[in-house]
Amino acid sequence: MDNSAAHLPLALLLVFGTAKLLAEVFERLRQPGIIGEIIAGLLLGPSVLHWVQPDQVITALAEMGAMFLLFRVGLEVKASDLFRLGGTALAVAILGVVFPLLAGWAMFAQLGYSLPVSIFVGVALVATSVGITARVLASKGWLELRASQVILAAAVIDDVLGLLALAFVSSLGQGRVNIAGLAATAVLASGFTFVIARFGARAFERIVPKIEAKLSVSEAQFNLALIVLFALSLLAVYIGVAAIVGAFLAGLAFSATATKRVQDLAHGITELLVPFFLANIGLQLNLADFANKRVIWLSIALLILAVITKLVGCGLGAIRLGRSDALRIGLGMMPRGEVGMIVAQIGLQMGIIERSVYAAVVFMAVGTTMLAPPLLNWAFRDSIHAPPSEDFSVG
Amino acid sequence: MDNSAAHLPLALLLVFGTAKLLAEVFERLRQPGIIGEIIAGLLLGPSVLHWVQPDQVITALAEMGAMFLLFRVGLEVKASDLFRLGGTALAVAILGVVFPLLAGWAMFAQLGYSLPVSIFVGVALVATSVGITARVLASKGWLELRASQVILAAAVIDDVLGLLALAFVSSLGQGRVNIAGLAATAVLASGFTFVIARFGARAFERIVPKIEAKLSVSEAQFNLALIVLFALSLLAVYIGVAAIVGAFLAGLAFSATATKRVQDLAHGITELLVPFFLANIGLQLNLADFANKRVIWLSIALLILAVITKLVGCGLGAIRLGRSDALRIGLGMMPRGEVGMIVAQIGLQMGIIERSVYAAVVFMAVGTTMLAPPLLNWAFRDSIHAPPSEDFSVG
Repeated sequence: MDNSAAHLPLALLLVFGTAKLLAEVFERLRQPGIIGEIIAGLLLGPSVLHWVQPDQVITALAEMGAMFLLFRVGLEVKASDLFRLGGTALAVAILGVVFPLLAGWAMFAQLGYSLPVSIFVGVALVATSVGITARVLASKGWLELRASQVILAAAVIDDVLGLLALAFVSSLGQGRVNIAGLAATAVLASGFTFVIARFGARAFERIVPKIEAKLSVSEAQFNLALIVLFALSLLAVYIGVAAIVGAFLAGLAFSATATKRVQDLAHGITELLVPFFLANIGLQLNLADFANKRVIWLSIALLILAVITKLVGCGLGAIRLGRSDALRIGLGMMPRGEVGMIVAQIGLQMGIIERSVYAAVVFMAVGTTMLAPPLLNWAFRDSIHAPPSEDFSVG
Repeated sequence: MDNSAAHLPLALLLVFGTAKLLAEVFERLRQPGIIGEIIAGLLLGPSVLHWVQPDQVITALAEMGAMFLLFRVGLEVKASDLFRLGGTALAVAILGVVFPLLAGWAMFAQLGYSLPVSIFVGVALVATSVGITARVLASKGWLELRASQVILAAAVIDDVLGLLALAFVSSLGQGRVNIAGLAATAVLASGFTFVIARFGARAFERIVPKIEAKLSVSEAQFNLALIVLFALSLLAVYIGVAAIVGAFLAGLAFSATATKRVQDLAHGITELLVPFFLANIGLQLNLADFANKRVIWLSIALLILAVITKLVGCGLGAIRLGRSDALRIGLGMMPRGEVGMIVAQIGLQMGIIERSVYAAVVFMAVGTTMLAPPLLNWAFRDSIHAPPSEDFSVG
């Protein structure tokens, strides 16, 4: 065989093996294992060892990991619970978008950056990346707590708002803002999300067993679930929200139907793929970008602003649930992850933001993601919780 | 989100969805479902619809599918059974290499092709691709039959021989044949395979529980199994055999240790990835290459030669087991799959073989792969078999 045959098994071994090794080390130090998995990416990537590039294959495995993670979380959530807390979730999402947007804008305007740059940074602070939080909550058996339900519902709404902000800022970069187009996207995205979340589980409970009974293929329900997962992820992207929102909705839709067998099989896939999602976050960071003091200070200031604004905005939105839950919700909404990085990449490609601002935004996105697990463990420490779901590993 | 966000979920939905749809159709027509999955690739690919390209991501998912398939098969096999039939397997492998090699060479020399071209075609006929056969045998619960054990053991030996033939022909293409290098590779590859197959299962039975007990990470045994799977696949490639041989050996090594839980989790992964492996076979074929009669006749003649030579060669090797088992073994060793295609690609890239010969070899590889499942079902029809493993779907 030629040498290129080694490429795939080498990448799989390096990323998966290092992620699990560092997860083990962090667990022993009584730290969250997922921090270890993110650091594995940081070590293997362009920052330190240069052994693994975030190429097409790693990126695809990472995206699939996020999709299956959110699908699994959707399976464990009751849609009716999300709607019961809908008002609070809406307030959390809206305030959690407005505060970071305005604060980021104001900070960069204050520092002397132009209007487009300031708006871009504000938008990069907007969208919560719920993957990390979902993983922590699921692994500890906290998914059924009120605060967790608010976080999940708010994160979905937040994604729709974040998409609109991103569409706005992209059209701004192109010199024309299409208000009618933005409004249409908003209606479509909200409608899609609402209809599936509201009626999906009940409809599937009735339809799926009937289809399943007619199929000759083995593992019919699982195969059906995978097809729905891919179809809703695709539809979500076409409508304008992230693929993982579609994956989460697919999980919700199957939550009343999925057998233990389907959950186990899906769990095998998340065990394989989620380490790629986590390591890929670390792979995005290039420490060489932080060679001068100004970038370091800018990054740290932006990180602090990102933490405080979500904490205050989302906390205020949830304040009627009490200070303890408001704090948990604020922390749960904190990670920006890949969405903030996508905004930064678009800004960089459009030539609107410079390399140092890009580096600061990526630092903020990775930083909020890595701070979340330990802070969540601390904020939820007193909660009476269900026995941890055996199907989610490493917290 | 930009439009590229749709690329991955679209490819996943198209390949997985079409594969499962056609598997269902074929099952209802009482045909093997996996033929439907291969045809799905043919439909989606460059031959018909042009909707899916066999790009890096699809290829990686396909390779991972083959690795996990062989890993799962290894888990269900006892290494001691393979060695009990070692003598027969060796005869099957050697005669199954010699017959196709000489016949392919002779046929193309007869047709007036040059010596290098004739040798290349002979080598492309050599290596059995055991994935398809393994999937059929596992799905029907036939893995424990004597004929199946011989097929698996012979396929591993065959891969070592095929690799040597490939290394020989590659060095021939470069104008120099390094005999010492080839001998070293032969010793290394045989030694690696022998040691792991012989001692792996017993060693792992003792070591794995001890390591597992010390780990804090959840699903420790499964994560350990994945790391061993990737490590042995990589080692196999470095030594010179195919990654799937390493994956099979990893399965063998864990066969005495793996819990039901580990098997279920691995099964979820194969359910997701194996359709990509199957569809990718169909994606390789471009019907446009068969626009003239000469290529069609050449392809059909080569396919017939490929079927007969493995049937006769492997059948002779196994004749002491009786005609019925000899037939089964000959048919099981028939699929050439991706190994034949790799040889053809190398020949094409080196400029040794022309496009029409390349097309005929790919046709032979896909054809032998698609003929195998129905013929195997027929040849094994009378066997008293174990209840089909619930963990392998669609035959």
